Amino acid sequence: MEESATKKPHVVIVGSGFGGLEAAKKLAGEPVQVTVVDRTNYHLFQPLLYQVAAAELSPADIAAPVRAILSKWRNMEVILAEVKAVDVEARRIQLADGAIDYDFLILATGSRHSYFGHPEWETLAPGLKSLEDAVEIRRRIFMAFEYAERTTDEAARRAAMTFVIIGGGPTGVEMAGAIAEIAHHTLARDFRHIDPSQARIIVIEGSPRLLSSFPEDLSASAMKQLVGLGVEVRTGVHATNLTDAGLFVGDEFIACRVKIWAAGNNASFVGQTLGVPVDQVGRVLVNDDLTIPGHPEVQVIGDLANFTHQTGKPLPGVSPVAMQQGRHAARNILGIIDGRKPERFWYWDKGSMATIGRNKAVADLRFAHFSGLPAWLIWLLIHVLFLVGFRNRIAVLFQWAWAYLTFNKGARLITRNFQAETRPPT
Amino acid sequence: MEESATKKPHVVIVGSGFGGLEAAKKLAGEPVQVTVVDRTNYHLFQPLLYQVAAAELSPADIAAPVRAILSKWRNMEVILAEVKAVDVEARRIQLADGAIDYDFLILATGSRHSYFGHPEWETLAPGLKSLEDAVEIRRRIFMAFEYAERTTDEAARRAAMTFVIIGGGPTGVEMAGAIAEIAHHTLARDFRHIDPSQARIIVIEGSPRLLSSFPEDLSASAMKQLVGLGVEVRTGVHATNLTDAGLFVGDEFIACRVKIWAAGNNASFVGQTLGVPVDQVGRVLVNDDLTIPGHPEVQVIGDLANFTHQTGKPLPGVSPVAMQQGRHAARNILGIIDGRKPERFWYWDKGSMATIGRNKAVADLRFAHFSGLPAWLIWLLIHVLFLVGFRNRIAVLFQWAWAYLTFNKGARLITRNFQAETRPPT
Repeated sequence: MEESATKKPHVVIVGSGFGGLEAAKKLAGEPVQVTVVDRTNYHLFQPLLYQVAAAELSPADIAAPVRAILSKWRNMEVILAEVKAVDVEARRIQLADGAIDYDFLILATGSRHSYFGHPEWETLAPGLKSLEDAVEIRRRIFMAFEYAERTTDEAARRAAMTFVIIGGGPTGVEMAGAIAEIAHHTLARDFRHIDPSQARIIVIEGSPRLLSSFPEDLSASAMKQLVGLGVEVRTGVHATNLTDAGLFVGDEFIACRVKIWAAGNNASFVGQTLGVPVDQVGRVLVNDDLTIPGHPEVQVIGDLANFTHQTGKPLPGVSPVAMQQGRHAARNILGIIDGRKPERFWYWDKGSMATIGRNKAVADLRFAHFSGLPAWLIWLLIHVLFLVGFRNRIAVLFQWAWAYLTFNKGARLITRNFQAETRPPT
Repeated sequence: MEESATKKPHVVIVGSGFGGLEAAKKLAGEPVQVTVVDRTNYHLFQPLLYQVAAAELSPADIAAPVRAILSKWRNMEVILAEVKAVDVEARRIQLADGAIDYDFLILATGSRHSYFGHPEWETLAPGLKSLEDAVEIRRRIFMAFEYAERTTDEAARRAAMTFVIIGGGPTGVEMAGAIAEIAHHTLARDFRHIDPSQARIIVIEGSPRLLSSFPEDLSASAMKQLVGLGVEVRTGVHATNLTDAGLFVGDEFIACRVKIWAAGNNASFVGQTLGVPVDQVGRVLVNDDLTIPGHPEVQVIGDLANFTHQTGKPLPGVSPVAMQQGRHAARNILGIIDGRKPERFWYWDKGSMATIGRNKAVADLRFAHFSGLPAWLIWLLIHVLFLVGFRNRIAVLFQWAWAYLTFNKGARLITRNFQAETRPPT
């Protein structure tokens, strides 16, 4: 770093998810100049995204403006821009409109859902990664009930009231539970020609059990809790084709209007522009210190990284991994500036959890497994704690309490894209 | 009403704004069958729409699902549909997908902004009528600051930091005050290359004074309060042309990226399908009992109605007029069913108010005029009272209190239309 004597090293962090934001916070006030680049202007609390899709929360409840989070540190700059590629030799990031040079790079552009070679399924079965995804899924769920209320075609009505979630991981389980509560409670009295509680909610999971990354007893418990909510769970089967009218599970056709994709992720394409090996889903094969081969000034973290040096398998794509890696990457940079070598990363796994509904969840805290109400209370506590720093913490708690007490989903707005219909983007 | 002996008369209310919703509530539990038709699934509290545009509130804070409001009364049905025309002879409403027959009709489809023969200006200067409008205006305001932060072209930066509001009525004054507060307080510390407080905010008003429907002393006060916020006000001038790069005010060109339209309204086209006389902006010329000529079973209310029988001039397009007319129309229907004639409508004008910013407002309560903090407190009180029935009342109060204490605008999300870019609507 020949510049470091005269000028502070420039650290660029691409992505303001859990990993990127933690890295930025760790570098706040340190002797580096930091630029955070993201294509949205907010940090998204993704674990609650399904609640936006279910109309229990509003987008602003789970998103915080990145500028506002970082504005108090003068060594932080935030840029709203789309990254196209990284030129590791030139130490330069290509943006859709311009370029940024860096001395150190932390790449944290995350993942999006993957359709296993069927990109055309995306319009048929949206996934749940962004606020736009969540609002679109919300629109489809509530419009399906509106359509069912008005149609006089009995088969069309049944299809409109059949909801299929493809994928039985945490997101799929959360979505299924949330739709079940909408159908059985929120909308129970609102219609005149349909009974929303007659809605069918089906989860399709390719592996032999739900939540396959969880211990078996918790998978079984999640299954029992979901079935208790009236959800049909089909394990060991795959969606083989999707159409407007429904989907095929092997030879069986299930007529359904709303399909939600919760089955797989692909890493962001930016990782593939580094010129180093990536795995089948595009994750960068990182060294044990999170750097990439030949470039100690470049670290890749979070969902974009494939880190196998601890367990022999890739670490899971969950927020604790991303956050710990973000802090580690920041420490590595400060170490290099002080003349040390990057250190090996170790993930401290505190466990995992998935929520299913009111009083319903599973939690694997390593030392013990919890189900039902205790797991749900742990889930609630952890999520409130992690919302710390969000001004919306109290507002979200209030919304939850209200929704819990009244079964009323107040954010139930179906917004339409008038912009899309009448106005070109500026 | 030959059916009334055997079957309850069918009242159709088109539009769930202030007028339509009041009419529906008045008919709740009465011996009529009511169908409310709207193309959105929510009632919008329009007076606070500018706060969504200014990112002080979220869409869900000021919108309430119509089904949830009306679901407890069994004689109420809600249909989400787009009305295309009314066939008054057949007593039938044509929908985009179907038709509904009525015995009585209350038409309350409101108005949208009008561009005085320049529909191509709509994309250049969006107006503020719907949630979609508000989110789009919010996006443009915040993207302008993002653009200004990144551009190296000084003229482009100045244009991005110039905001022009066309129209100096209540909406224009509210938007101008809100943008001034965003620029001077909310964003004050968030950027590194621009000083948001250097933003220019300009209000263009064609008549000689702001708030021309208010008493002169309050217009003067509003002017003083706005200027105190750093807003430039130009009265007696018109926008003569709009372009991407800015707008012409007479011969002068003002380079500006964001233009907001608050200048005029056109009534909904549905009124023109009734086959009775309408005024220049499409409002239906109603009888003194709100019915239309030759059809005592059809009443037109709110922004869609031109009611001149009280003052010789049309009543203003404000929510109290719509609400009083909604209740009156409902009473008229119940009277006709009881064998009485429709009664004459009288508007009870309790005054009007406009807010300008923190502690800043004007209020004309007929018996006295208020400005500044007293007017603002009256505004706050009235708006909280009228949010009654909204579950979000406490949440909105909380948001306001928070924003007031911290100058922090938490709903500051720039959401993008991924749907528009990648997915066709279903």
